[in-house]
Amino acid sequence: MDMTIIRIPKGFRAAGVMCGIKKSGGKDLALIVSDVPCVAAGFFTQNAFAAAPVQLCRTHLKNHEARAIIANSGCANACTGKNGMADALKTARLVARAVGCRVEEVLVASTGVIGPYLPMEKIGAGVNRAAQELRATGFHDAAEAIITTDTKIKTASLDLEVGGRTITFFGMAKGAGMINPQMATMLAFVLTDAVVSAPALRKAGRYALERSFNCVTVDGDTSTNDTLLFLANGCAANTRITPVGKDYKIFESALTDLCQSLARQIADDGEGATRLVKVSVTGARSEKDARKVAQAVATSNLVKTAIFGHDANWGRIVCAIGNSGASFDPEKITVHMGAELLFAKGAPQVKSEDGLRRVMENHEVPILIDLKSGNKCATVWTCDLSYDYIKINADYRT
Amino acid sequence: MDMTIIRIPKGFRAAGVMCGIKKSGGKDLALIVSDVPCVAAGFFTQNAFAAAPVQLCRTHLKNHEARAIIANSGCANACTGKNGMADALKTARLVARAVGCRVEEVLVASTGVIGPYLPMEKIGAGVNRAAQELRATGFHDAAEAIITTDTKIKTASLDLEVGGRTITFFGMAKGAGMINPQMATMLAFVLTDAVVSAPALRKAGRYALERSFNCVTVDGDTSTNDTLLFLANGCAANTRITPVGKDYKIFESALTDLCQSLARQIADDGEGATRLVKVSVTGARSEKDARKVAQAVATSNLVKTAIFGHDANWGRIVCAIGNSGASFDPEKITVHMGAELLFAKGAPQVKSEDGLRRVMENHEVPILIDLKSGNKCATVWTCDLSYDYIKINADYRT
Repeated sequence: MDMTIIRIPKGFRAAGVMCGIKKSGGKDLALIVSDVPCVAAGFFTQNAFAAAPVQLCRTHLKNHEARAIIANSGCANACTGKNGMADALKTARLVARAVGCRVEEVLVASTGVIGPYLPMEKIGAGVNRAAQELRATGFHDAAEAIITTDTKIKTASLDLEVGGRTITFFGMAKGAGMINPQMATMLAFVLTDAVVSAPALRKAGRYALERSFNCVTVDGDTSTNDTLLFLANGCAANTRITPVGKDYKIFESALTDLCQSLARQIADDGEGATRLVKVSVTGARSEKDARKVAQAVATSNLVKTAIFGHDANWGRIVCAIGNSGASFDPEKITVHMGAELLFAKGAPQVKSEDGLRRVMENHEVPILIDLKSGNKCATVWTCDLSYDYIKINADYRT
Repeated sequence: MDMTIIRIPKGFRAAGVMCGIKKSGGKDLALIVSDVPCVAAGFFTQNAFAAAPVQLCRTHLKNHEARAIIANSGCANACTGKNGMADALKTARLVARAVGCRVEEVLVASTGVIGPYLPMEKIGAGVNRAAQELRATGFHDAAEAIITTDTKIKTASLDLEVGGRTITFFGMAKGAGMINPQMATMLAFVLTDAVVSAPALRKAGRYALERSFNCVTVDGDTSTNDTLLFLANGCAANTRITPVGKDYKIFESALTDLCQSLARQIADDGEGATRLVKVSVTGARSEKDARKVAQAVATSNLVKTAIFGHDANWGRIVCAIGNSGASFDPEKITVHMGAELLFAKGAPQVKSEDGLRRVMENHEVPILIDLKSGNKCATVWTCDLSYDYIKINADYRT
């Protein structure tokens, strides 16, 4: 695993330790702490069975403040009822005591198998060890501790000048399966040292989410545990960013770039993926229609298996568009894969199947759909569907 | 392939021939003809890119009459624009001339790869040969000629006493992938010698469809070509069945039984399937909610891969229920697999994973979800998701 050079916002430390939750071994507990209180915002799964840690985060974020994030992999603590809620709260208490903050300032996240209870003894020992190991260079270990079937850690960072001060952003994410809009993140934590108001952080976070994690799909399943957290600790000492003005726009745009980088990394590392597929829809009557079409194509098992097989079976793309429920004129739309025109005027336009196959030999496969009915657009990233997706998921727990 | 004993309604003949459309060889053109004009009803895909034969059928069925069905496999004649429409019409004309009926009495169906044009020269020769081979025992050949990735032919038949007369029903279907409600049939043709009014046939057909083909899913993709046709030629000479009364109810019920048998055969033969999965939802506030939940579980790749791997990962079922968008109380619902209780009171209830694995070792795996919020119910049949689904679909056309 490469340790890419990443920039960490001032005043944050992290650690990632192995505490024995994952059967396969490896790091499985991440702790992130800010030296000073943070403004915080969170976005969570829409699944009716939101996991215990998600429910706890919603409560703890009511005052838009946080100091620490504790996240484990290997066990989702989902569908675990009252016991699960007690375990999540106990985890927060352990962290509060270990790092010296209020329990309400601790955000908890879990990912892994749905159903089992957290092994609280292991968590207790792990929290103490992670608290001792906290350091400014601990973010690689933390990013590693939150992954499950991911083959790579996912991080991104960037710097920004706002009114003569440098603001730094850092994000980490995990997610490779059970990935679908309405929080496609599984887990993503974005940290910044910006001084930003709670409403501005929430507004920018929502904007970034809708253009990144909500535009990625691996298998159409939305997890019980999806969690996206934004923490801003103010250590950059810039003029406070509020929900209006030029500084806000710069901030929002940077946050979106960062989240898009993480979201693309998730699609690219989709379970069993061999190709990153970018489905772009233009010319829609509404953004909703554009998303429906992009989503229908990106979640079609038949499109995804054809791309895996480098099979120039473009009719499946048109079929998926037809299933989207979006409003358009079938006679008007055009479909391209890369530069190759597939479909226009309601009829096939493929000149060269070899050309099509060459497009599919690239790592990134772009599918471009112009509905020619308006000026709205949307993009969804996904991956192909391979034997390895089945292999990974037929026997996930062993 | 077994030739099962089937009963054929009086006055129908059929043939299935090889005319060279399928690259893999094998029969690929089916012709079904009634000696006398039939009352007819058709139900078709909701896909915006309805294939040329579907569009032609819609036109030809306006007067609720038909004499013949011509169906090819190997080429869907879908997304083929004006040329495709001309080819479908030309096919109908060839049949009308060969069997001696009006072109409007010919219904056309196609299944196979989306995009390519029909090889009309081969179709022409095939139609003539099929017309010469028409016979009362030709239905097995015809059923064989409409299959694509199916591993088995799908037929069903039954007899019925109505007012002292015997009415016979026979149905054939094909479909193994690109199968999802809103016409899950791919192709299904149901023939009867009953005397029945057009409104009664249409009403009973709709009733049967909603309880059979619309309750089966393989991969969540709805085809461009889905076609369900009902033909009743009146040769049984029973008192005419109209949309009311006891005879109608008997007729409707028989038609539903027949269609359910065909629909289950489709789920059971899903591409790469090793298990038939029956998802039953009870206690829903509305039938719509019940269907949403059953459909969410039955289309979850994660649930389907777990069943393929005999992995007792029941949390994925609960997760899929949570994604369904149906209205229910998460604390109230119960989930069983076979006789094993998985989930109740918002918490895990699994006593024995061995017991669960034993359920998954049976060919049919029943999942029972009680929402405990009302008295509506729904059942959806599906199959597991295996390596062979990927294999079949990554390289379908070669």
